[in-house]
Amino acid sequence: VYEILARTVYGKRKKAEVGVDRLVAEGAFAAAFPLHEGPFQLPKQDVRPDDLNRRQVLYFYWARWSKWYKYQPLDHIREYFGEKIALYFAWLFYTAWLLPAAVVGTLIFVSGVMSMGTNTPSEEICHGGSSYRMCPLCKTCKAWNMSDICTMAKLGYLFDHPGTVFFSVFMSFWAVTFLEYWKRKMATLAHHWDCMDFHEEEQERPRPEFAAMAPTVEQNPVTGVKEPYFPEKTRLSRMFTGSMVIVLMLCVVIIFLVTVVMCRGIISVMMYHTGSPVLRTEAATIANISSSIVNLGLILLMGQVYTALAEQLTKWAEMHRTQTQYDNAFTFKVFIFQFVNFYSSPFYVAFFKGFVGYPTNYGTLFGMRNEDCGPGGCLIELAEQLFIIMVGKQLINNIQEFILKVKAWRQRRSLANVLGGKVSHEPHRWEEDYQLVECGGLFEEYLEMLQFGFITIFVAAFPLAPLFALLNNWVEIRLDAHKFVCEYRRPVAERTQNIGVWFSILEGLSHLSVIANAFLIAFTSDFLPRLLYQYKFEKGLHGYVNFSLAYAPLNYTYKAFRDNDGNYTLFYWELLAVRLGFIIAFEHVVFFVLRAIDWIVPDVPESLELKVKREHYLAKQALAENQEALL
Amino acid sequence: VYEILARTVYGKRKKAEVGVDRLVAEGAFAAAFPLHEGPFQLPKQDVRPDDLNRRQVLYFYWARWSKWYKYQPLDHIREYFGEKIALYFAWLFYTAWLLPAAVVGTLIFVSGVMSMGTNTPSEEICHGGSSYRMCPLCKTCKAWNMSDICTMAKLGYLFDHPGTVFFSVFMSFWAVTFLEYWKRKMATLAHHWDCMDFHEEEQERPRPEFAAMAPTVEQNPVTGVKEPYFPEKTRLSRMFTGSMVIVLMLCVVIIFLVTVVMCRGIISVMMYHTGSPVLRTEAATIANISSSIVNLGLILLMGQVYTALAEQLTKWAEMHRTQTQYDNAFTFKVFIFQFVNFYSSPFYVAFFKGFVGYPTNYGTLFGMRNEDCGPGGCLIELAEQLFIIMVGKQLINNIQEFILKVKAWRQRRSLANVLGGKVSHEPHRWEEDYQLVECGGLFEEYLEMLQFGFITIFVAAFPLAPLFALLNNWVEIRLDAHKFVCEYRRPVAERTQNIGVWFSILEGLSHLSVIANAFLIAFTSDFLPRLLYQYKFEKGLHGYVNFSLAYAPLNYTYKAFRDNDGNYTLFYWELLAVRLGFIIAFEHVVFFVLRAIDWIVPDVPESLELKVKREHYLAKQALAENQEALL
Repeated sequence: VYEILARTVYGKRKKAEVGVDRLVAEGAFAAAFPLHEGPFQLPKQDVRPDDLNRRQVLYFYWARWSKWYKYQPLDHIREYFGEKIALYFAWLFYTAWLLPAAVVGTLIFVSGVMSMGTNTPSEEICHGGSSYRMCPLCKTCKAWNMSDICTMAKLGYLFDHPGTVFFSVFMSFWAVTFLEYWKRKMATLAHHWDCMDFHEEEQERPRPEFAAMAPTVEQNPVTGVKEPYFPEKTRLSRMFTGSMVIVLMLCVVIIFLVTVVMCRGIISVMMYHTGSPVLRTEAATIANISSSIVNLGLILLMGQVYTALAEQLTKWAEMHRTQTQYDNAFTFKVFIFQFVNFYSSPFYVAFFKGFVGYPTNYGTLFGMRNEDCGPGGCLIELAEQLFIIMVGKQLINNIQEFILKVKAWRQRRSLANVLGGKVSHEPHRWEEDYQLVECGGLFEEYLEMLQFGFITIFVAAFPLAPLFALLNNWVEIRLDAHKFVCEYRRPVAERTQNIGVWFSILEGLSHLSVIANAFLIAFTSDFLPRLLYQYKFEKGLHGYVNFSLAYAPLNYTYKAFRDNDGNYTLFYWELLAVRLGFIIAFEHVVFFVLRAIDWIVPDVPESLELKVKREHYLAKQALAENQEALL
Repeated sequence: VYEILARTVYGKRKKAEVGVDRLVAEGAFAAAFPLHEGPFQLPKQDVRPDDLNRRQVLYFYWARWSKWYKYQPLDHIREYFGEKIALYFAWLFYTAWLLPAAVVGTLIFVSGVMSMGTNTPSEEICHGGSSYRMCPLCKTCKAWNMSDICTMAKLGYLFDHPGTVFFSVFMSFWAVTFLEYWKRKMATLAHHWDCMDFHEEEQERPRPEFAAMAPTVEQNPVTGVKEPYFPEKTRLSRMFTGSMVIVLMLCVVIIFLVTVVMCRGIISVMMYHTGSPVLRTEAATIANISSSIVNLGLILLMGQVYTALAEQLTKWAEMHRTQTQYDNAFTFKVFIFQFVNFYSSPFYVAFFKGFVGYPTNYGTLFGMRNEDCGPGGCLIELAEQLFIIMVGKQLINNIQEFILKVKAWRQRRSLANVLGGKVSHEPHRWEEDYQLVECGGLFEEYLEMLQFGFITIFVAAFPLAPLFALLNNWVEIRLDAHKFVCEYRRPVAERTQNIGVWFSILEGLSHLSVIANAFLIAFTSDFLPRLLYQYKFEKGLHGYVNFSLAYAPLNYTYKAFRDNDGNYTLFYWELLAVRLGFIIAFEHVVFFVLRAIDWIVPDVPESLELKVKREHYLAKQALAENQEALL
């Protein structure tokens, strides 16, 4: 990109902006960066804290593992790195809010483990012996006994008991309360750092790429200064380009999803044909896990492709004038990409898997029978998927850290080559800093917010998600701190008053999570069928397993509320009405309460608002006096 | 109130604010008001427009019936009456937006009338003869033939055909588009009138009542000026007081609702026992209409009580410092009151009427059988109610106009008494203006916004509502204009940048309307049962009437999807699932699209935003230069 840019700049020299960026782009300089204030290593002899430079202070009090239990010194971070990076670390404060969610989630999980033994339906499955002969799972497979899947049925209860329903309601409120808090925190920080009235468009210069590409020069409508100008495409045509790409990308994701589904089916059939009894009973699980790993690989591969594509799109197709506009457009696009990328597979498992039809009339896709969820229910498969994605992502993060180290090492070697080992003097600050890696921006860091989706959208399936997220973020804070203080060149400080488009994304995620949880509880979980069974027959869950099975020809059974001809029973329709009614009630109540919270809690803390008004008032007074003095 | 206030002011003289308001309150002056600029009557001989005073200009170009087709001269209104009143007339501009809604609504209604004859179910009812013997409607009533209600069934189709479904979707989008437009309009006007940065709390003085009641004097946290101070109750305790009153009021409304329901039942039974065949067949309609009128009376009575109650509450319990805060709190309270007051009865008819149980097992309330909707369906009853309430309100408006005239006349007479008829000189301006009525504020005018609810919330039942609203508002504009120019004393001009809490109310109404329409179409309308019947039996609507009837003992029939034992049939449960599914689909799609519209359309027009930024920038530059000049 730099090469192309440099050539473009040459071509349009008369209009191009000048500055160090251009010299770097043209290759006159190898790099340009602000210097660190000194080494981060602490001096060996004892020194007073006053003698430390600011980098050492940050290292000593913040960027070390041994400080894991400490708050983050946001003001110091801001002083050294600027508002943008400080705000990122302030955002990581959401880690603290994860604590209650993690505790409740763990309690829910533990209560599931405790009551696992006393669960009537899984007891009935385990002690059913050969009384329930289940339909074969594929054309050439054999029938099987329901008691074979005793373990899975017991495990399934872990992810599908009344506690998870409570937990998903809890997490909806948690998410909204957190966002309300974050809004207030953001306002307070922006005021504290004096960037509340920071308007990007007024003060930001055009991006160098924009300046290089712009065909004409025109007056900036705000400042009146002549600036490179690009005839702005209309908002609508931009949107159109953007949406077309998103649609294209959706198609690709769906193709990959189908691939993974087919892959899972093939693995599953292969397992059955090995003949090994262990492989046969665990076929679904093995197929599920292995295809999840394939899926993860695809996700990561596609993620790279998508990000590159989005960068090109944002850069060449849309031509945003300022860096902030560019960042927002890019962020939004990549987020949509990544969201569909990461979440399509869990969504498929949660809501679309299991539409199998019934024996003698199975639904098919490309000649293969539609997938059914394993005997433990869809929720346990969803939990497996989420676990693999979350842990997998963590693994990739570690690999990325490793790549960073390799980069740093190569940088250092190339510099050593240049100097030719003939360094006689104490290395200069700029030499030392040149050995460090260039900071790649906060985009990748913020993309971790996908995590927020995992802990809210599918929380009903995986109550341990907040705990994992908490542990991950706890590590992340010190890891990132260490990177910024010790491994990165000092980035150019940037001002900002909020986290930009990320906040809208978070809000969207929290709303989506309410809807997803409602559907998850209503359709994927076994919660409502059990409840309705208990209510209708007034004998607890005794006989529920038998009741939930339908008879196929040859006296085989399968899980569905159908009569012997495959038509839905009255209970099925009653249950459907209950399910849909539950969704309506859940969404209306939760959204209403959330709106009420949003309405009652002011976005700016009252004391801060008074302060701002006071300042406003004083400024006006001062202006009036000033003018009097002039007259 | 003035008496009490005057005494309070006397008692706490040292802390009280001084000014003309206090002198009026103490009776030293009879009144204090800004003067009109002259007579509104046009001079008899021809004059050039430049010679007219501003009041005459307003009268000539705006406040006359003959100008009904003209836009409103907002800038002139603002110049003469101030921003607050001008903004009210700008709001009335929503009249123009009603035009498309009224046209579409009328088309829908006409298409209903056109297709009334070709409607299969009502044909089947009319030609059924005595083949359907219906269950008696009360204990002592007789059974009746379904063909008796042929007319009602035909009329019912007017309010319950596929067009109304389309219309309610259309109106949801209409409402949101209108609000988006209004947001932009409001921002433009606020900028145009230079009150965008108007912060009430900085510039508004405490209300006289507040000053009089305040026990101590403290520094204003913003201006630093010593001011009467009232130890502010916490937000929460205020909310609590407010909610308690609202709950209390809800109870009262429900009691009145039950009264009206009982009243309707009693009238209906009485009709049956008159023996007249006409009265018998139309019993339900007559009962419905007469009880609607009773209901309207109660609504108006309670409205007066509520408003008085809310005023007291806001004044004494909450103690708001500024007039704006007071107005907002008062407005919100009265709106909630009036909303429940006006809408509870339509809500009852739309959603709660018709839970009657089945023969041999009727549900009862205080020993009376629960009400069922008339044979035309609940929608036609709802339409009747809405019609009566809307027309009734219009009637009351006219009565209020009359009261205003009476007031003006009394004012004039009392002044004549004071002067004793010994007026020799040409009357002074202040004498003429004193004869006018004091302007009661815009609150009553804005309360007309309840109308917005009628045309959005129950639009499925009454497609003509937008047309009525349009006609009403068209008249209202010139009527209000005439009042302000000719009949009111000139009000003190007030600044404001928006319509305050009313906007939130409108937004709430538009959201509520989506939900209400979804439920109305799903449950109250016959749209979905018919659709499902057509889909399942593939023979159009033939036989639908027979299918929708259930058999009671003695071979009587009644309208329900039940078997002979009174249990719900499979079709009922299927239908219930379809209904709930429809609600979910409708709400998600509509809300999603609405959110997208809200997100895509910027709240402030782009050109205005540039202008504001430019001004901001110039101000900053000027400040910098100013400071340089000082140094």
